[in-house]
Amino acid sequence: ARHIDWSPLMAEKGGYKHFMLKEIHEQPRAVRDTIAGRLQEQQGDVYLEDLGYADAALQTVQRMVIVACGTSWHAALTGKFLIEGHCRIPVEIDIASEFRYRSPVIDEKTLVMVISQSGETADTLAALREAKKLGAMNLAICNVLDSSIARDAAGVIYTHAGPEIGVASTKAFVTQLTALYLFTIRLGRAIGRLSVSEGQQMIADLKKVPELLEQTLKLNGQTEKIARQYMNARDFLYLGRGRNFPIALEGALKLKEISYIHAEGYPAGEMKHGPIALIDEHVPVVVLVPKNSTYEKTVSNMEEVIARSGRVIALCSEGDHEVQDKAEATLELPELSDDLDPILLSVPLQLLAYHIAVLKGTDVDQPRNLAKSVTVE
Amino acid sequence: ARHIDWSPLMAEKGGYKHFMLKEIHEQPRAVRDTIAGRLQEQQGDVYLEDLGYADAALQTVQRMVIVACGTSWHAALTGKFLIEGHCRIPVEIDIASEFRYRSPVIDEKTLVMVISQSGETADTLAALREAKKLGAMNLAICNVLDSSIARDAAGVIYTHAGPEIGVASTKAFVTQLTALYLFTIRLGRAIGRLSVSEGQQMIADLKKVPELLEQTLKLNGQTEKIARQYMNARDFLYLGRGRNFPIALEGALKLKEISYIHAEGYPAGEMKHGPIALIDEHVPVVVLVPKNSTYEKTVSNMEEVIARSGRVIALCSEGDHEVQDKAEATLELPELSDDLDPILLSVPLQLLAYHIAVLKGTDVDQPRNLAKSVTVE
Repeated sequence: ARHIDWSPLMAEKGGYKHFMLKEIHEQPRAVRDTIAGRLQEQQGDVYLEDLGYADAALQTVQRMVIVACGTSWHAALTGKFLIEGHCRIPVEIDIASEFRYRSPVIDEKTLVMVISQSGETADTLAALREAKKLGAMNLAICNVLDSSIARDAAGVIYTHAGPEIGVASTKAFVTQLTALYLFTIRLGRAIGRLSVSEGQQMIADLKKVPELLEQTLKLNGQTEKIARQYMNARDFLYLGRGRNFPIALEGALKLKEISYIHAEGYPAGEMKHGPIALIDEHVPVVVLVPKNSTYEKTVSNMEEVIARSGRVIALCSEGDHEVQDKAEATLELPELSDDLDPILLSVPLQLLAYHIAVLKGTDVDQPRNLAKSVTVE
Repeated sequence: ARHIDWSPLMAEKGGYKHFMLKEIHEQPRAVRDTIAGRLQEQQGDVYLEDLGYADAALQTVQRMVIVACGTSWHAALTGKFLIEGHCRIPVEIDIASEFRYRSPVIDEKTLVMVISQSGETADTLAALREAKKLGAMNLAICNVLDSSIARDAAGVIYTHAGPEIGVASTKAFVTQLTALYLFTIRLGRAIGRLSVSEGQQMIADLKKVPELLEQTLKLNGQTEKIARQYMNARDFLYLGRGRNFPIALEGALKLKEISYIHAEGYPAGEMKHGPIALIDEHVPVVVLVPKNSTYEKTVSNMEEVIARSGRVIALCSEGDHEVQDKAEATLELPELSDDLDPILLSVPLQLLAYHIAVLKGTDVDQPRNLAKSVTVE
C-alpha cells in the first residue's frame, strides 16, 4: 500500500502547503461571498444589511475619516480614491495609533469609518471609541462577526472572507477593497452623486471580479519563476500611482512581513524626491503600471529606474508590449476598471511575497515577531 | 611657506567640509531670520507680510489641504498637528504628484497650502494651479524669492533659510517647520481660536529655538561616534509618534538620500502591524522619544524593538535615565515644547545621516540620481 502523507492540518489547508497560499486561492470565492445578496442591479445600488444609516443620515455627511492599521490602512488609502471620486466628499485617512492621540477635528457631520479584519485591533477600537465620544457618525468594516469593533460601531459592513489563518493578510484585504467599493455605490446613490446607470456600470464591473481573480491566479507559476530570479535581493521597492499606490505599499508590506526583505512602497512620483538614490543594479523595483489615466507618467517613472540600472518587475495590462519591452520581468493582468484594478494587482504581489518567503525557508504562516490580531497597543 | 589648502569653493563652505554640514550649522541663524520682524509679542500674534489673506478671509476657511513633495511633505505632516491642534480646522496632507491627478475635492472654502523650498517643484506647481482652477484659497511656503510658486500663489510665507546648496534639505526644512508654526499662530488669532496669552506663550517658546538649536548642534561629536558604530548596517528604521512621526520619516529620508542605506520611517504604533518582522540584531532603530504626551507609548514600542534584539538609538529629553538605561546609544536634547520638539529632533538626525555618508565616502552634497530642485514631473 502507498504511504499516505496526510494530516488533519493538511486537510484544513485544503492540500495547499500553507494557509497563506490557500487563502490567496480562496479570493475569488471570498469576493463572491462579500458581494452575494448585496447587489440591486436594476436600481444601480447595493444593499448593506447592517449599515446603520439610511439615506437621510448619509446625506448629512460632510466629511469622512477612515482609520485603520497595517494592511487595513492600505485598503483605506485606496478607499479614499473610490469615495472622493464618486461621491465628492472629502475623505481623510489616518493611522489608528496616530488618530487616537491626535485630538482629531471631527463632529457629528463627520462619518468615521474604521477597518479591521479581526475587529479586535486595540488601536482601531480605541479610535472608534474616541470618534463616538466626539459625536461622529461611525461605521466599521470587519471580517469577524460580532467582534468588539463590529459590536461597538453604529453600523458594520462585514467582509465574508471567512477565517484568515495566515498572519499576512490576503483575502481579508481584497474583501476590504470590495466592501469599500460597495459602500461607495451605496453612499453615492444615497446622496444623489451617483446615477442609476453609473451604479449599474460599477456593479457590472464588480461582477467580473471573481472570474478575473481566477484568471489572475494563473500567474502563480510565472510569479514563482520571478521569485527564484530575485529572491536574493536585499532590498525591494514597489511603485504605483493613484489607486494603486496603496497597493504598492501593501505589496511591500507582504514581502517585509514574511520574507524579512526590506521592501518599501512609494507613490511613483515621489521617487525623484529621495528614494531614487537607493537604486542600483541590485535593487528590484516592482512597478504597478496598468493602462489607466496615469499610465504614461508611471511608464516614465519606470524608465527613470531603468536608467539607473534598477531591475524592473512590471505588473501591466495584458498585451502591453511597450512595458514588456522595457521591463526585466513582466506579469500581465486582465483589463478591468481603474477602480477595481487594485484588487487584481494585489494577487501577483501576494504570490511574489509568498514564493520568495518559501524559497528563503521562512515560516510563512507565522512570521517572526508578528501576531495575527494586534490586541495590544 | 606653508601650503595653504584653500579654494574659492571652500570659502563658500565657510570652512566646513561640505555644504550640508555648513547648512546644518546655519540653522540657528536661519530660524532667527525666519522669525525676524514677524513677532507681535504683546498681541500674541505674528505679522506675515505677504500672506495675502486678512482676518475676514481666513475666517471663511472650512478646511485646509497642504500639498508638497519629499522633505516639504514631511514638514506638512507636522504642520497638520500644529494647525489642527491650535485652530481646530481639519487639515489634510497630500503628495503633489498624487493630488494633481486625484480630482481633489476642494472648493472656495478650502485653503490649499503648497510647500516647496525652490518654489519650482514641477508637481507642486501643477498642484497649486489645479487648486486655483478649482477656486480654492491658496498660499505657499517657499524659500526662493520670486520663484514660480511664490509668484503664482495668492499669498506666500517666505522662509529665510538663505540659498541651500546641499541636495539633502536641512535648513530649508527647519525653517518650513518654523513658517508653519508662525502661520498657526496667525490663523489661530485670525479665527479667534487662539487667545492672546496662548499666542504669547507660543511666541515665547519660539524665541528659545535659535539658542536651543545651538545647544543641539553640540551633539555633533557624539553623533559622529554613533555614526562610526552603526555605519555598516544595511537597514535602519526610524520611529516616532504624533508630531515626531514625520520627523522619523525625514530622518530616514536623509540617510537614504546621502548614504544609500535603506532607511525607513514609521509611526511607532504601526511597528506591530508588519515592520517589526524586519527587526533583528543587525537593524539599528532610531527612536524619537522626548518627554511628551505619548512618551510612555513610545517607550513601550522601544522595548518591543529591544525584546527582538533590535539596536536602539534613542533621541530623548535631557536627563531621561529610563531611556538611557534601555537604549544602546542615546542623544539627549534640551526640553522645549511638544510643538517645537520636531525642530530640535531634526538636527541630530541630519548629523547622523551626514556622518554616516562621510564615513562611507559618498558624495554628500551631490548624491547619485538626485537633483536639488525637481523641475520635471
